[in-house]
Amino acid sequence: MSHNSFGHLFRVTTWGESHGPALGCVVDGCPPGLSLSEADIQHWLDRRRPGTSRFVTQRREPDAVRILSGVFEDDRTLEKFGGAVTTGTPISLMIENVDQRSKDYSAIRELYRPGHADYTYDAKYGVRDYRGGGRSSARETAARVAAGAVARKVLGGVTIRAALVQIGKDKIDRAAWDWDECERNPFWCPDAGAAARWEELLDATRKAGSSVGAIIEVQASGVPAGWGAPVYGKLDSDLAAAMMSIHAVKGVEIGAGFGAAELSGEDNADEMRAGNEAPRFLSNNAGGILGGISSGQDVVVRFAVKPTSSILTPRQTITADGAEDDIRTTGRHDPCVGLRAAPVGEAMMACVLADHLLRHRGQTGR
Amino acid sequence: MSHNSFGHLFRVTTWGESHGPALGCVVDGCPPGLSLSEADIQHWLDRRRPGTSRFVTQRREPDAVRILSGVFEDDRTLEKFGGAVTTGTPISLMIENVDQRSKDYSAIRELYRPGHADYTYDAKYGVRDYRGGGRSSARETAARVAAGAVARKVLGGVTIRAALVQIGKDKIDRAAWDWDECERNPFWCPDAGAAARWEELLDATRKAGSSVGAIIEVQASGVPAGWGAPVYGKLDSDLAAAMMSIHAVKGVEIGAGFGAAELSGEDNADEMRAGNEAPRFLSNNAGGILGGISSGQDVVVRFAVKPTSSILTPRQTITADGAEDDIRTTGRHDPCVGLRAAPVGEAMMACVLADHLLRHRGQTGR
Amino acid sequence: MSHNSFGHLFRVTTWGESHGPALGCVVDGCPPGLSLSEADIQHWLDRRRPGTSRFVTQRREPDAVRILSGVFEDDRTLEKFGGAVTTGTPISLMIENVDQRSKDYSAIRELYRPGHADYTYDAKYGVRDYRGGGRSSARETAARVAAGAVARKVLGGVTIRAALVQIGKDKIDRAAWDWDECERNPFWCPDAGAAARWEELLDATRKAGSSVGAIIEVQASGVPAGWGAPVYGKLDSDLAAAMMSIHAVKGVEIGAGFGAAELSGEDNADEMRAGNEAPRFLSNNAGGILGGISSGQDVVVRFAVKPTSSILTPRQTITADGAEDDIRTTGRHDPCVGLRAAPVGEAMMACVLADHLLRHRGQTGR
Amino acid sequence: MSHNSFGHLFRVTTWGESHGPALGCVVDGCPPGLSLSEADIQHWLDRRRPGTSRFVTQRREPDAVRILSGVFEDDRTLEKFGGAVTTGTPISLMIENVDQRSKDYSAIRELYRPGHADYTYDAKYGVRDYRGGGRSSARETAARVAAGAVARKVLGGVTIRAALVQIGKDKIDRAAWDWDECERNPFWCPDAGAAARWEELLDATRKAGSSVGAIIEVQASGVPAGWGAPVYGKLDSDLAAAMMSIHAVKGVEIGAGFGAAELSGEDNADEMRAGNEAPRFLSNNAGGILGGISSGQDVVVRFAVKPTSSILTPRQTITADGAEDDIRTTGRHDPCVGLRAAPVGEAMMACVLADHLLRHRGQTGR
Repeated sequence: MSHNSFGHLFRVTTWGESHGPALGCVVDGCPPGLSLSEADIQHWLDRRRPGTSRFVTQRREPDAVRILSGVFEDDRTLEKFGGAVTTGTPISLMIENVDQRSKDYSAIRELYRPGHADYTYDAKYGVRDYRGGGRSSARETAARVAAGAVARKVLGGVTIRAALVQIGKDKIDRAAWDWDECERNPFWCPDAGAAARWEELLDATRKAGSSVGAIIEVQASGVPAGWGAPVYGKLDSDLAAAMMSIHAVKGVEIGAGFGAAELSGEDNADEMRAGNEAPRFLSNNAGGILGGISSGQDVVVRFAVKPTSSILTPRQTITADGAEDDIRTTGRHDPCVGLRAAPVGEAMMACVLADHLLRHRGQTGR
Repeated sequence: MSHNSFGHLFRVTTWGESHGPALGCVVDGCPPGLSLSEADIQHWLDRRRPGTSRFVTQRREPDAVRILSGVFEDDRTLEKFGGAVTTGTPISLMIENVDQRSKDYSAIRELYRPGHADYTYDAKYGVRDYRGGGRSSARETAARVAAGAVARKVLGGVTIRAALVQIGKDKIDRAAWDWDECERNPFWCPDAGAAARWEELLDATRKAGSSVGAIIEVQASGVPAGWGAPVYGKLDSDLAAAMMSIHAVKGVEIGAGFGAAELSGEDNADEMRAGNEAPRFLSNNAGGILGGISSGQDVVVRFAVKPTSSILTPRQTITADGAEDDIRTTGRHDPCVGLRAAPVGEAMMACVLADHLLRHRGQTGR
Repeated sequence: MSHNSFGHLFRVTTWGESHGPALGCVVDGCPPGLSLSEADIQHWLDRRRPGTSRFVTQRREPDAVRILSGVFEDDRTLEKFGGAVTTGTPISLMIENVDQRSKDYSAIRELYRPGHADYTYDAKYGVRDYRGGGRSSARETAARVAAGAVARKVLGGVTIRAALVQIGKDKIDRAAWDWDECERNPFWCPDAGAAARWEELLDATRKAGSSVGAIIEVQASGVPAGWGAPVYGKLDSDLAAAMMSIHAVKGVEIGAGFGAAELSGEDNADEMRAGNEAPRFLSNNAGGILGGISSGQDVVVRFAVKPTSSILTPRQTITADGAEDDIRTTGRHDPCVGLRAAPVGEAMMACVLADHLLRHRGQTGR
Repeated sequence: MSHNSFGHLFRVTTWGESHGPALGCVVDGCPPGLSLSEADIQHWLDRRRPGTSRFVTQRREPDAVRILSGVFEDDRTLEKFGGAVTTGTPISLMIENVDQRSKDYSAIRELYRPGHADYTYDAKYGVRDYRGGGRSSARETAARVAAGAVARKVLGGVTIRAALVQIGKDKIDRAAWDWDECERNPFWCPDAGAAARWEELLDATRKAGSSVGAIIEVQASGVPAGWGAPVYGKLDSDLAAAMMSIHAVKGVEIGAGFGAAELSGEDNADEMRAGNEAPRFLSNNAGGILGGISSGQDVVVRFAVKPTSSILTPRQTITADGAEDDIRTTGRHDPCVGLRAAPVGEAMMACVLADHLLRHRGQTGR
């Protein structure tokens, strides 16, 4: 029920504001006996870290994670599990904020930035930490990535990868998809041709003080058939909630997604043939989920990220007192927040799947 | 945590299979003192009922709802509240299944229908009620509509309406939008021109034994600023989960949705001007939600429904024993399940909003 | 979060008022493939049924249960599972109210009965179904017993039994404990001597128009070590909530319970010796639970039930309008509601254990 | 659902092991606009702190709390709210462990201490942090007290106080009850005579290397009628869970509690007379709760704490490998852990009440 928790058996609670002393999360319900070190988590945090290219915010945050609880090491765990392991108790992870520069944000204290949550937080709570967006800052997603690193440990053989498939109106050529390419450019772009075009696009956007949106695709392979649940516990329902909870996301789709509305029943049907251990599907319009339950195919989710709301072009707005004014958001911003959403999407996929692994095992014993 | 419950303070638990004796729901957490009769609920059920036009399944279900608990009437409630009222205890609603024709489905017992949950239910549970899709049947949505009728009572002045904005590849002309038109055609179509085209399209689809998908838009007006919550309790996150939990839905978007990815920051910003009681927004790309919290604008959600998976054209599949075969699904089916999804989308919007009204009031006292 | 639900993975939601048309529950999360028939549930309901001896309310309710969903039978389940089986979907159970006699209760509509929830329901909700106590009636416990019957199926080899160990000030002789004796008297009394005394005590209490309290002990044997969880998910914490949620219960204790406060550390320690498959404990002051986790010993819970609040002796009270008056509660009442609490206590133990079995399996895979 | 969370709308998640770097909690759902500083919380922590008298563990922990999120201060909050205030976002509280002395515990690594959770943690998880009891240490209760301090802010006019009413077999004289006396002795004892006797009793217990149990009573006054909920959301059900979740607690009772079993219906009935703003009750056997809902009387809960399991007298046990041995627990231990349970019981009462205040307000708007 908690507003700041996600998942049920594998349950993540995040906390922290953009300009507070730290942020973090508590991961509860993690199975015991999983090897887990700070380095395991840092690996994934480093992929999301700000300041790594000229296309993301220049805020300099080391995003160094500390494990404060839930993991134990002695000579016996070393022998039995090969190092520090999870104990089944809550794992508390903390990341200190280092480069806050609170002064940058003093100007926006009185003005509601269009596209940001400034006005709605005030309308809801009557008070807000306006520094850097407070709780609504994308910094919160660092805690998600840390939790996702733990979820990956739970998932063992499942591989989760994300790629940007569109920036602005420019889509990748899916025929050119190469996962390795994602590691070679700062855009998580699986198509080398698109990556080259995006570099120009984003440089132009940044210079214009503008911003642009993106679409991210997350794939999980190795998910067995049977995870998920009917009706409100559907795997796709939880994935939709997970992705939509990421800052700036405005749409989520599974498999053929919105395109499925344009298909005929014949074209949409993923036909089945006998396979070795499991059936073989001839297509994957379902995105690996039927009736809310995984089918053994790759789970495929896409989500749309709106353009960064912090832009240099003045926009009309009002003050907290209701007076009309214009606002121009200076400071350190991503021209395309979608770039940093890719590892966050992976982390949310990992958390949803880990939760459903445990839920499925709980109910069915498998 | 329940797989078959939705919401937190306004919490709906549904039960029932397509060919069992009945289906229904328990609505818990409803505020006391709300006028509620079976007729209030029946009104909304009648809008979703099968058999009302040649474009939906010919299964003849009266869908007559009974209130089994949670409502009380005596001369004192009559005087104080004007009739039967909710008491704050769980409201149990039951709808008996009447027209099951179980024999229609005996053929599909051995064969997994592509696009249906047959294979995944077997993979998860090792046993399934295959008659009419069992728990995975769209009949479950009758319980949602009943719950949604209760939620509307909670919401008072909020107006919730749904319309189909696309069938197959044919989109409405948004400039021609007229809510009254939705009541004049069997497609929930707000554009008279599109409604005429869709009649031809669906007749052709039905005659071809094929099916087609659709996109539904749900709007809620009268929602005050402040409902929702940051991060995982976002109003849009819960709406995404709610809509994605509806059978056959493959995508959900809020406001500009996937289109937001193609906008620049300047174009996406919903600028603000001073209003009378609340700020006035000059556009609504946000779909009424900023940072997961309602802004006072209309809440706008769209979702994509895939084409009905039950079609007459044979598709390749396998048997429960893994042998290869073809399947051709006869029986009573909707050529476009999206048609009956409109009132279901309204109901889910109502349930999400009612829950967030109570959650917001609980935390903030407003 | 639901006010009328209990449990997490094995989750029970009950509904219904004393004088409404019916009452029931939805059991969600039940594992698939468990043999389950109405007769299986009826067996346990019959043990709780009113009207079975002169010591319990004379309301004549057959308490006939109907399974409305979640169970399936065909020739294949007959062959594979030996009959009808659970499918993993929500199990809806309904019991119709038959013998309501609403007129009996018209007198209490204006007067708050001391010890009853009349005043507090009005204070909370501003409206209440006063007929027979409405939602607060002990009839709600029929739904618990039905749910407990399903839970017992989940638990397999675990044996759960309850006995009354005290009525009024008269305690049993624990040295005379004989479980078989519980089946031979209408008091669930394991001590034949006490049973004889209680017959006289309760006859005298009934004739005096008075009532008396009781203490019930519930034991579960066959629970393996490892169920439960640290801190707030403690097995004993959930048992305490479960038992305290039963109508008229005012206290709960585990193992040595309140008596543990009087022990020294030496006397309280349950010493351990090597056993065959599991350690052997030399005593069970812990009641089978250490640190919130089962130890493999019998789980032992006791709870105290206050005397029936409906008595013939006039008591001072006020009307709904605040005027002072006296009340004398006629109608059909148990002289000792504790008598019918024994099967309810068993049911709650079963529900708690079934939930923890699934939770433990989910987290640890064991 | 989380094993380490408590509450629903006011939701507390705790984390941390006895000998890890820190422990803490996340409080989610706290209303905005409440004045909150570290000093506010420290006040209550100091009352629970170890090392404050010779009757509690000599571990020297400053228990200095840090607020890491959820609170904001600037000149505007200073003007509007009088200082730093809650913002409605999660409040993360951290307490660093300072005086761990891990070496003290190396001996118990191989041996299961009777009465402790050593064996059950191993049985459940297959691995455990044995240093100082790990997650099962009473140090976890510091996080509860910190959360309780926040809950008190939510509760405003409600007063919550705890007192020890029995140590070992020695009960206080309730006629001599004086709350002020609790501040004058190290036993939270409201009876000066008993306090003098207990000093001797505990000195003797400590010197004998033994330990003793206790009974604590917690009272809340100022709770309005109407908090709580029927059936499974009963206020007393949640209080029972809360108190039973405290380490070493073996029993919980409300109002007359187990004594109610011995009363007649006439004696148990709390008669009502007309009052000024609310009815006046002539007794409080109900402990302020009827039908799970507060009546406006003082809420009265008692719980029993077993004697400290860590004692110097050797006890029989087994090793992790199943070999038989004796154990004698040296180190720093409380002769009566019940002493430090008083502020923890207050904190749990505060958390339960704050949650129900929000839940009641959410459902009913009052």
